[in-house]
Amino acid sequence: MTITVHGQATSSCTSRVLTTLFEKDVSDFQLLHVDLSSGAHKQPDYLALQPFGVIPVVQDGDLLIFESRAIIRYLALKYEDQGSPLYGRTLEERALVEQWLEVESQNFHVAASALVYQLSSRAKKGLPPDADVVKANIEKLEATLDIYEKRLSKSSFLAGDFFSLADLSHLPRTKSLMKSANLPHLITSREHVHAWWQRISTRPSWVKVTEMATPSK
Amino acid sequence: MTITVHGQATSSCTSRVLTTLFEKDVSDFQLLHVDLSSGAHKQPDYLALQPFGVIPVVQDGDLLIFESRAIIRYLALKYEDQGSPLYGRTLEERALVEQWLEVESQNFHVAASALVYQLSSRAKKGLPPDADVVKANIEKLEATLDIYEKRLSKSSFLAGDFFSLADLSHLPRTKSLMKSANLPHLITSREHVHAWWQRISTRPSWVKVTEMATPSK
Repeated sequence: MTITVHGQATSSCTSRVLTTLFEKDVSDFQLLHVDLSSGAHKQPDYLALQPFGVIPVVQDGDLLIFESRAIIRYLALKYEDQGSPLYGRTLEERALVEQWLEVESQNFHVAASALVYQLSSRAKKGLPPDADVVKANIEKLEATLDIYEKRLSKSSFLAGDFFSLADLSHLPRTKSLMKSANLPHLITSREHVHAWWQRISTRPSWVKVTEMATPSK
Repeated sequence: MTITVHGQATSSCTSRVLTTLFEKDVSDFQLLHVDLSSGAHKQPDYLALQPFGVIPVVQDGDLLIFESRAIIRYLALKYEDQGSPLYGRTLEERALVEQWLEVESQNFHVAASALVYQLSSRAKKGLPPDADVVKANIEKLEATLDIYEKRLSKSSFLAGDFFSLADLSHLPRTKSLMKSANLPHLITSREHVHAWWQRISTRPSWVKVTEMATPSK
């Protein structure tokens, strides 16, 4: 049965889901574009699928599921026996995937999103960044990335020597942190974090998703 | 093998873990008190266990795991065959547990924690709340609880008709929202949310944890 992803290839949360589908060799899916610019996500037919009015939401037969990190966990489990072992292979590996996925969600994502908002989204509206908010979040992110640096000096990926949901979940926000917020040095100045970024951002799944998000010439 | 929880019974994140242990009928564990007031969580021996310097962290044999929502997922899976089925019984139920656990973490927790900080933590330091922050987070939380109200009119618990990690994860912050931040009406003014709160907050597991957190007379 075809999986339907309602979202946008350019959105962080949607691209997290698409990358997981590619990592899991799932080709039987369709992306239905939700036009945020026209407010399609606030219309009753969309709100019936996703009551918070945000993207993405996934339909898989009778199952409707939203929240990107819940969707990627579901896909990793449903397709456990195919593609990359995104949850690891043992209970202990899975525990560490969950740990670093929570670190991404609770620490990395919060600080990185604040920076992207301050240094990119506000600039697009002609608003200046709040210098105090930028400073505080750079400090938080530096502290988190220092912990990543130590961790990644011991293993190739966050949860161990295998690419997992935890690494995957960092892809969209790290890209916008480096490009849109123009803060690549936060990543490139740390040897092991930089090598990790090169490892994960060149995976065919992510390359394909970034191509989907690029307007055709 | 005995599981060791490094934390404090009074902490939201530690109590999430303790409640899961009780729900899973795990009695072979010990709680090692981390004295936050003396800064024990910032000492090298603790940072070797938990590099972010926050509680809790769990030791289970050779496995060290932190982030409360990662720990409760690990415990739910490790003790899948005993106690309450906190992850549900099917792949679809589990997907909805993950979905509502993410809603708790990304929506409910963020707004509720901001309110507890503004209306309780700051007051303890003699600081006034920031009225704009309070207003914005009450609006966010009301919108989230309106969605809960609709959902809970159709099922007894968030992920379905079974108590799960998603409900459990709401316990500590809802308690402090109602008591410390003195905002019980956000819960009690919504019929189905209120009935849900009464159902989940009277579970023996949670009652036991709140007793552990209460200073003995």
